[in-house]
Amino acid sequence: MKTYFDCVPCFISQSLEAARMVSDDEQVHLKVLREVMRFLETVSFNNPPPRVSMDVHRIIREITGSRDPYKKVKDQANRMGENFFPVLKKMVKNSESPLLIAVKLAIAGNVIDFGTTTRFNVKEVVNKVMKHEHVNEEVYSRFVKTLAEADRVLYLGDNAGEVFFDKLLLEELFSMGKHVVYVVRKNPVINDVTYEDAVFAGIDRVAEVIKGDTGDVSAPGLLLEFASPVLMKHLRSADMIIAKGQGNYETLSDIKREVFFLLMVKCPLVARDLGVETGKMMLGVKQ
Amino acid sequence: MKTYFDCVPCFISQSLEAARMVSDDEQVHLKVLREVMRFLETVSFNNPPPRVSMDVHRIIREITGSRDPYKKVKDQANRMGENFFPVLKKMVKNSESPLLIAVKLAIAGNVIDFGTTTRFNVKEVVNKVMKHEHVNEEVYSRFVKTLAEADRVLYLGDNAGEVFFDKLLLEELFSMGKHVVYVVRKNPVINDVTYEDAVFAGIDRVAEVIKGDTGDVSAPGLLLEFASPVLMKHLRSADMIIAKGQGNYETLSDIKREVFFLLMVKCPLVARDLGVETGKMMLGVKQ
Repeated sequence: MKTYFDCVPCFISQSLEAARMVSDDEQVHLKVLREVMRFLETVSFNNPPPRVSMDVHRIIREITGSRDPYKKVKDQANRMGENFFPVLKKMVKNSESPLLIAVKLAIAGNVIDFGTTTRFNVKEVVNKVMKHEHVNEEVYSRFVKTLAEADRVLYLGDNAGEVFFDKLLLEELFSMGKHVVYVVRKNPVINDVTYEDAVFAGIDRVAEVIKGDTGDVSAPGLLLEFASPVLMKHLRSADMIIAKGQGNYETLSDIKREVFFLLMVKCPLVARDLGVETGKMMLGVKQ
Repeated sequence: MKTYFDCVPCFISQSLEAARMVSDDEQVHLKVLREVMRFLETVSFNNPPPRVSMDVHRIIREITGSRDPYKKVKDQANRMGENFFPVLKKMVKNSESPLLIAVKLAIAGNVIDFGTTTRFNVKEVVNKVMKHEHVNEEVYSRFVKTLAEADRVLYLGDNAGEVFFDKLLLEELFSMGKHVVYVVRKNPVINDVTYEDAVFAGIDRVAEVIKGDTGDVSAPGLLLEFASPVLMKHLRSADMIIAKGQGNYETLSDIKREVFFLLMVKCPLVARDLGVETGKMMLGVKQ
């Protein structure tokens, strides 16, 4: 998905939010605001939003001097995920269709996101997802069929906190005997899941955790031009790809390979691209 | 009220909206986006938002070549106001407290605004205002008392379309024998009410309509440094000042004179400044 002009005000709001997370100094906020605008003036709109975001957040880190402005909210989200986990796990276990419930909860966990300006209440979303939301049956059937035939599953993670919701699904896949590779960002970017978050959530006990990108700066979405060799190998060899969240959707929506997308639609432009409403719980597939 | 850093993304969203109103050419939208950002990089945040907006919309007009990008939506709003008017007038007439109802409807009319990114449904708002919303009783008592003692009332208009809602209150004031001066913008800016809109609504039959500012570019709020000599005269001589909308609130919130503000709170920063929630129907007073 390309970057829209309407992404610009959103990048700026997010930059202010990030600057305020690490500094109370209005001069720092102003500097971030100005430098980000200066950068956005020159940006190409042919790239997907995470490519732009990658540089926007590099600028924020440089000006604030913080390697990880979202550290605090990520830790909070992880603790929240950790607290929610036992209840959610029971919901999966006690269900007649644990895989379906795990898929739905993995999608619900995608509300934990500081990469968009809309905020959701996790408890409300879990309730809504369990009671009123339905995944597309046709896509879910295909998901089940593809999974049944798959040995190796590549699972692209999205955010800290959300990683505990992924864990529900990853444990289901593990119990089905699948070899799952869980992909994290190499460096902190927004609240995206890193290796430390994945290990904190115990993902390494049910999946192989790999860093998806190379270099000193990560994008909040999988950009093939920065993909690590180990990820490229898995992209080629995986029997099934599951991608979590808007960022991975934005970077992979045009890829020529079957990818299952699990996400909460938070942004009106992603909604338009998918042809659905904002707030929609989405299990989608692109070939 | 000063301009907040958070106004910046809002100025940019609005610029894109305005550019799209007059052109389908993405290159024009991109030029507006870039030039507005270039300008916003240099802007002073000590001025109220309408001072910044004045320049932002000048840039938009220069790039798009349109003297009045909001012409179409203003005409639509005026026609909507015209259609609503007879029903609203009946609501006032049939009421036991026509002045109060006229005040409430004048506030409700302030939902017609393209100067903020939040959109409201007028019919819903009128229903809500009539059934569930209450003006602050203390402020309304003072409004009534000040009005009783006033001969000359200065009424600062806000938007096209909304001018028909103002008309309800202006007719009440007229029937009470008040001399009312209704202030419009000299030049088109966003969807702010101009002389043509006021005459279209027939305001000139119940009030003296004057242009509040001088020069070739108007601000969407009353800036004293650009006030016309005729407005300055009325500001000095008026017994009562009524200011409609957020823009006039933003420019006059720190003035050392009693001003009654009638507005729908649409922006979270104005809400914070007023100490109320977004969506609030507001009859306020500042001294």
